[in-house]
Amino acid sequence: MTMSNASLPSFEIGLNALAAILDKAEAHAKAKKIDPAVLLNTRLFPDMFALVRQVQTACDQAKNASARLAGVEPPRYEDTETTISELQARIARTLAFVKTLDANKIDASVDREITFPLGPNRGHMKGWDYLMHFALPNFHFHVTTAYNILRHCGVEIGKRDFLGVIPMKIT
Amino acid sequence: MTMSNASLPSFEIGLNALAAILDKAEAHAKAKKIDPAVLLNTRLFPDMFALVRQVQTACDQAKNASARLAGVEPPRYEDTETTISELQARIARTLAFVKTLDANKIDASVDREITFPLGPNRGHMKGWDYLMHFALPNFHFHVTTAYNILRHCGVEIGKRDFLGVIPMKIT
Repeated sequence: MTMSNASLPSFEIGLNALAAILDKAEAHAKAKKIDPAVLLNTRLFPDMFALVRQVQTACDQAKNASARLAGVEPPRYEDTETTISELQARIARTLAFVKTLDANKIDASVDREITFPLGPNRGHMKGWDYLMHFALPNFHFHVTTAYNILRHCGVEIGKRDFLGVIPMKIT
Repeated sequence: MTMSNASLPSFEIGLNALAAILDKAEAHAKAKKIDPAVLLNTRLFPDMFALVRQVQTACDQAKNASARLAGVEPPRYEDTETTISELQARIARTLAFVKTLDANKIDASVDREITFPLGPNRGHMKGWDYLMHFALPNFHFHVTTAYNILRHCGVEIGKRDFLGVIPMKIT
């Protein structure tokens, strides 16, 4: 158990799951002759984020949290995606960034204070608390909400798609 | 970092957050003269779980995962709730059960194989992988989906309600 293996694999598995879910959404849109932009702009309530922003935010949670734990200033990615393939590129770019981080630096962050923007304020949490009670719940929240929007639109995905490729043996 | 503090506080914070969200749902139903049963039976798509089952499942993820990590057979709770106050009792019962578990036993589960039902099959994962890549994502998934159903119904809750009471300082 280390901070790096409590964080990096969770983000990588979740981002890869999200990419695979978006592949299924694209195939569904094609098969049902739905404009993919309709899916990307669907939201569960008028003041919630639409799918495109749920994906952007999931990526940013992974990027920002892993950068902060590594003691690196998170790079800022513009939110300009308007197609599923652009979102796939955003996910791939995020995965590539996460792989550049120094696992040893992340491992040293357990008790280090992490400071992060919180609306107009700043939040402060110890590394371990930040990962377990802010970064991972937020990351899972946005991946789940992306999944829920697509389920709500009739895309045929299931819990296995959400969990992604995990180290599980089935008998 | 221990298995017990990677699991128990996440479940406790999440279950308490879910209870507070249900309090807001009940107040919303009362203020808007909505039958709470309508909220409890709302689902985001016809073959998804309704709110009542999302809450039951979130409770069961917390109960079953923490029990299995502690090496205890999870008690089975019947799914009989039909009101918000009955769901609150289910959450309270789950929280009380989780507190009975031996943290030292959970701490010893990092590399122990956890076996759990998976539809008609059985899943097998090491304790750490089971917690990080199955139990916590599943738990967050069902709390998020309960939240999303209520947001979809117009209940005024926000991300802070989802995150719950966490060890964060704000400046």
